[in-house]
Order: sequence, then C-alpha cells, then structure tokens
Amino acid sequence: MDHTTQVLFSLFIVFVAAQVGSEIAQRLKLPAVVGQIGAGIAIGPSALGWMTPNEPLEVLAEIGAILLLFSVGLETRFAELKKVGKVAAMVGIVGVILPFLFGGVWATLAGYPMQKAAFIAAAFVATSAGITARVLQELGVLGRIEARIILGAAIIDDILAMLLLGIVTALQTETGVNVLNLLMVLGQALAFVALVAVLGRKIMKRSSHLMEAPLDPESPLSISLAICLGLAVAASQIGLAAIIGAFLAGMILAETPHREDLEHNTRPLMALLLPFFFVLTGSHVNLNLLGTWSVMGTVLLVTLLAVISKLVGCGLAARSLGKRSALIVGVGMVPRGEVGIIVASLGKQAGVFGDSIYAIVIAMSLLTSVIAPPALKILFAGQPKGEDPVEQDGPAQPVPVT
Amino acid sequence: MDHTTQVLFSLFIVFVAAQVGSEIAQRLKLPAVVGQIGAGIAIGPSALGWMTPNEPLEVLAEIGAILLLFSVGLETRFAELKKVGKVAAMVGIVGVILPFLFGGVWATLAGYPMQKAAFIAAAFVATSAGITARVLQELGVLGRIEARIILGAAIIDDILAMLLLGIVTALQTETGVNVLNLLMVLGQALAFVALVAVLGRKIMKRSSHLMEAPLDPESPLSISLAICLGLAVAASQIGLAAIIGAFLAGMILAETPHREDLEHNTRPLMALLLPFFFVLTGSHVNLNLLGTWSVMGTVLLVTLLAVISKLVGCGLAARSLGKRSALIVGVGMVPRGEVGIIVASLGKQAGVFGDSIYAIVIAMSLLTSVIAPPALKILFAGQPKGEDPVEQDGPAQPVPVT
Repeated sequence: MDHTTQVLFSLFIVFVAAQVGSEIAQRLKLPAVVGQIGAGIAIGPSALGWMTPNEPLEVLAEIGAILLLFSVGLETRFAELKKVGKVAAMVGIVGVILPFLFGGVWATLAGYPMQKAAFIAAAFVATSAGITARVLQELGVLGRIEARIILGAAIIDDILAMLLLGIVTALQTETGVNVLNLLMVLGQALAFVALVAVLGRKIMKRSSHLMEAPLDPESPLSISLAICLGLAVAASQIGLAAIIGAFLAGMILAETPHREDLEHNTRPLMALLLPFFFVLTGSHVNLNLLGTWSVMGTVLLVTLLAVISKLVGCGLAARSLGKRSALIVGVGMVPRGEVGIIVASLGKQAGVFGDSIYAIVIAMSLLTSVIAPPALKILFAGQPKGEDPVEQDGPAQPVPVT
Repeated sequence: MDHTTQVLFSLFIVFVAAQVGSEIAQRLKLPAVVGQIGAGIAIGPSALGWMTPNEPLEVLAEIGAILLLFSVGLETRFAELKKVGKVAAMVGIVGVILPFLFGGVWATLAGYPMQKAAFIAAAFVATSAGITARVLQELGVLGRIEARIILGAAIIDDILAMLLLGIVTALQTETGVNVLNLLMVLGQALAFVALVAVLGRKIMKRSSHLMEAPLDPESPLSISLAICLGLAVAASQIGLAAIIGAFLAGMILAETPHREDLEHNTRPLMALLLPFFFVLTGSHVNLNLLGTWSVMGTVLLVTLLAVISKLVGCGLAARSLGKRSALIVGVGMVPRGEVGIIVASLGKQAGVFGDSIYAIVIAMSLLTSVIAPPALKILFAGQPKGEDPVEQDGPAQPVPVT
C-alpha cells in the first residue's frame, strides 16, 4: 500500500469504527459519543491495532471539534449566557481550584516532588467542552440553564487552565514564574473573549447582509466557516483552545439571520468530521501500560478524585440552582477528554511525565469522558424537557447522532 | 506559533484565499475553479509564500476531490452512461494515444533518451476528471451528453494512464516490462469497475432501506460516506485514482431513494473541502523555475502540444456528435490538473525528472487546467441548455460555486 492509500485507509477505518461504535452504544441506550470513544480504544494501537494516530487524522479530529463547538455556539444566545454569567464564573473558578488541590495532594502523597506534582495537578483541571457539548446536543437540551452554565464555565475553565499550565510549565525551569508575563497572557485571553463577544457581535449584526454573494447561494456558509477558522486560529494563537474561538464564532453568527441555515449546514459537516474527534480521543489510551493491578488501582483512584473534585467544586458553585441542576452542572464538567490528553502529552514532552503517570492521566481523561455522558443522560431523562425559559425561537431540537 | 496553531493557520489562509479567488473569478465571468487555482499560485511558496503544502492540507485536498467526484457520481445515471459507452471508450483510448505520441516526439526532439522521453510522454496523458467535473457541475450541464462522455472517458483514461505509468516506470529499471504483471493490473482495474457497477448497484437497490437507522436520521449520509471512502480506498489500492472509486460510489448511491438528500448534504461538505483541492493544486507551481524566457517558451510549447493532442484526439473520437459537441468533449479532456502534478512528482522521485522538466510539466498541468474551464463556459453558453434528453427527474440544477 502506498502512502496516500494508507492514509485514506486509516480515514476509512476510523470512520467505519465510529459508525459501528455509535450503533452499539445507542442499542445499549448509551450516548453515541461513548460508543465512538470506545471504538477508538478498540481499534487503537494497544488493542486491535487497526490504526495508529497520524497527523492528518489529528487535524481532521481538530476540525471536527472546531465544527462541534461552532454548532454548539450557533445554538447558544449571548443574552442567555449573560444571565447565568455569575454562576458560570463561580463554577469555572471553583471547578479549577478544587481539582488542582485534589490532584496536587494525591501527587505529593504518591511521592512526586513539588514541581512535578503541580504539573500532574494541572492535568486534573481542564474540562473537555467537546464531549459534554455533544451529549447536551444529542439530548436536545442546549437551551437549558444547566447547559448554558456548563458552556460559560467551560470558557472560564479554559482560560484558568491555560494560565495554570503556564505557571506549572514555568515551575519546571530554573527561571521560575514570571508574574508579569502571566498577567499579559490573562489579559490577552480576557480581551479576546470580550472583543469577540462585544465588537464581533456588533459587526455581525450590522453587516450580515454582506455575507450573501449574488452569484453564490452558499457564500454565507463559506464566510461563516472562514470566520470560525479565523477565530479558532486566533484563540489558539493566544494560548486558548481553538474550540473556544469556534464557539464564540458560532455565537456571533447565531445573531445573524443565517443562523438556521448554518445550523442545518453544519450537520453534514459534523457527520463527516466528528467521528474523527471521538475515535482519535479513544485511540490515545495505551492499554498495555495499564496491565497491572496496581496501575489499574491507581487509575481508578485518580479517576475517582478527578470526578469528585469537579462534582463537588462545580456542584457547590451551582448550588443556587437546586440539587438536581447543580448535580447536572457538576457531572457536565467532569469529562477531561482531549484536554487531559493534551496536558499529559505536554507533560511527556517536557520530560515531567514518565510512561506510567502519562498512561494513568490519559486513562483518567478517557474514563471521566465515558462515565459522564450516560450519567448526564440519566439525570436529564428524569426531568421533563424545556422546563426553564428557552430562547424565543423555541427549544433546541435534538440533533441526530452521527 | 506552536505546531497545531500553524497547521490551523495554513487551513485558514487556504480557505480564505479560495473564497477571494472565486469571488474575483466570478466578477471576471470566469469559473470559480480558475480563481481558486489562481489563488493557490498566488499564496503558494514561490509567489507570496503565505503557505507551504503540508500533509494535512494534502489530505484535505484529497478528501475534497473525493467528495467532488462523489457528488458528480450522484448526478450521473448508469443507464445514461451506458448509452454513450462506445463513444466514451473511443474518446478515452484515442485521448491517451495521441498525447502520448505528441509528448514522446517532443521529449525525443528535446534530446531526452528513450526511457526518460517515455516517462515525460506519460505526463502528457492523464486527464484531471476533478477540474472538468466541477466546471460542468458549476454550469449545471452534468446531464448533457458531452458531460457523460467526458466522465465515461475519464474512467477509461485513468485506467490506461495507470497502465502506461506502470510501463514507463518499468522501462526505467533494467528488468524491463513484465507483460503478465501489466495484464493483471489491467484485469484488476476492469474487474473493479465492472464489479462495482453491476454488483454494487444491485446490492444498493435491494438494501438501501438498511441505511436508515431508526435512532439516527443522518445515518444514510454516514453510511454513504463510508461507502464512498471505502471504494476510494479500494480504487487507490489497485492503482486507480481514489476519485474513480468515489465517482462509482456516487453512481451506485444515486440509484437509491436517498439520492436527493445525499446531493443536498454533500454541498456543505464541498463548500468546506473543495477549496483545499483547488488551492493546493495551484500552490504546487514553482514560479522561480519558470523565470527565464527559454523555459517560458518551452512551457508554452509543451502546453500547446498537450492541448492540441487531447483536443484533436478526443474531438476526432467524438466527431459523431457533431462539431460543437466534439469540441466540448475535446476541451473537457484537456485539463491535466492534479494528475499531471502527481506524475511529475513520481518522475522526480524516480530520479527521471530534473528540476526544470518537473517545473515545466507542472506548469503545463496548471495552464491546461486554467485554460479549459473558461473555454467550456463559452462553448456551453452558446447553446441552449438541456437540448438533449436528460434523466427523468429533470435537468441537473446548477450547483452554487463555493
């Protein structure tokens, strides 16, 4: 097989595995996401070995995640997000502090020196907006207050996690932490979000008619995709997750008359690209390194700490919503997904993470990502849909699972 | 900029350049394709240098081409293709022989030894189905008899070009040509096309209802994309172009009741991915190597020979259609596009092509790709639309340019 065929073949395998995974998951009444992540573990290098992550696959996965958060942004209203601003900020902040503390204490007790322990703790922190967002979309509850709080908190969470990662990375070097530098980074991130939210929205509202080219009925989609990619690059450039930029792009485009067309048109795009995101996430786990009972025990302990710290931290911060909603918010923030995997990879590159702690953090990231979706499904199933005020154009429609 | 940001940035630049290119082209009344290829030349490494082709971009371009031929396949009927089978076969065969002879004579006169001359001649042969197909789709004339002949001939052309490439590659080694081996390759290719066309179609007709999963309204799209990728991989594996497999996949899926939905759903996919195909095609040209008058003269001469040989060869083979239609078929087979670029790259890898002949062949591939679309537009504009019998569900709709 020549190289082109090989790459095409890996795309085909990943795509088909995702379809089989979602089908199985849905028959088991699990969210499709869980099936796709599971398919990734199954076909990944350490199990069946039918595929190995390669750069084109990683890029397709990244585009998939970008389109996902873009489409979630399209279903989110600024006005609605603003209403929950305070609670979301609290959820984001406490949901960073508590996991960091839990992670730090565990790593210290496990015998890691302070600097390494801090890096490990940072891997406990970040939330994967992608996984929860997809589950909320699948369940058709993106208009619900808990969903909005989770999405708002995910932005805060990402900003804080980025700062924290900056701090713990600086701790590994001799020069130490440069506070001025960190403040700059923080300022940049906040300015970016604020600028897009305020200025971007205004520009969009005023000039959305310019998106229609007379010769090209699909130009609103093309221009929107350009804006989405542009803001994703900008977010990535200042150190935020690219998907935060895509989410903001979706939100400002949701204020234009093109919103419904865009929602409609992003579905085939997600059908093609989302499978790469979830399957690749699953394929990163290395089952071989988890083969002993003691490592398995550690994985379970670390996962438990990761779950509890988010659940308690975020749940407490959202307690004003009532018990069940607070629980939903807490569970929604649990998945570490690809973010945990990225932190672990950075740790490995920096020489901080050995093979074993690397495998443990990745396993924890995946386990949290697989546990949370069914829990969310159960928590939402117990409640009637759309009980709290949804946006004026009616409740969000359940989006078919790809 | 870290690596992820860099890759995302290159995607963004390519995507935006494509939009600007199509807009300019359309204002100049040129097909959008020309604008996108032009944008690729402009932002490519040898002009503005805003991007360098990288593997993720190449894979996105390949997926774009696959989706394009898939969607063209969706708009093509087997029954209609069969009717023009004989003429298409003649066009394909003569359209390979004449350019090969012209190329061989030129290369020999230019002083290349026989083996090298044969390889250069092979670069004169292959037609880029992608570029013509997109122009025909843009013009909304895929239902026309000329379009069907071009598409049918492109399959024959690709099979013969593959064989020819096998022969000229074997000529470079001392062991020489293995006739048995070549017959095997030919048999495999013909068997693949026949098998998909006959068996694939039957299976699709009988089991298209299985594509609808009760839980997932988008499963027909997902399953169709899996079939498309699968046949693209299979075609690529036996040495054909991946897009031939995608085209066949589109044709067999067009026989199911999902055809209209699929046509509709592939549009956003093409809006995202086609720009990568055309811009990347353009970005491969190295303007620096074309800087001298003598090289420029050679490029023009080679391009002229490449155009005339296809025009005369394919036109003569299609002369039964009448002058204008024969001319349309001839022009439609002119673009060498990405196929010429691939042959040139293989020649470079095999040590047969020096820098200068490599640059010349690539420039010829691009020039033919940029000349043919406006010529097709003019030729079709002179005629009333849909004058010959189109398929029962009405003439193909002009597809918006992305």
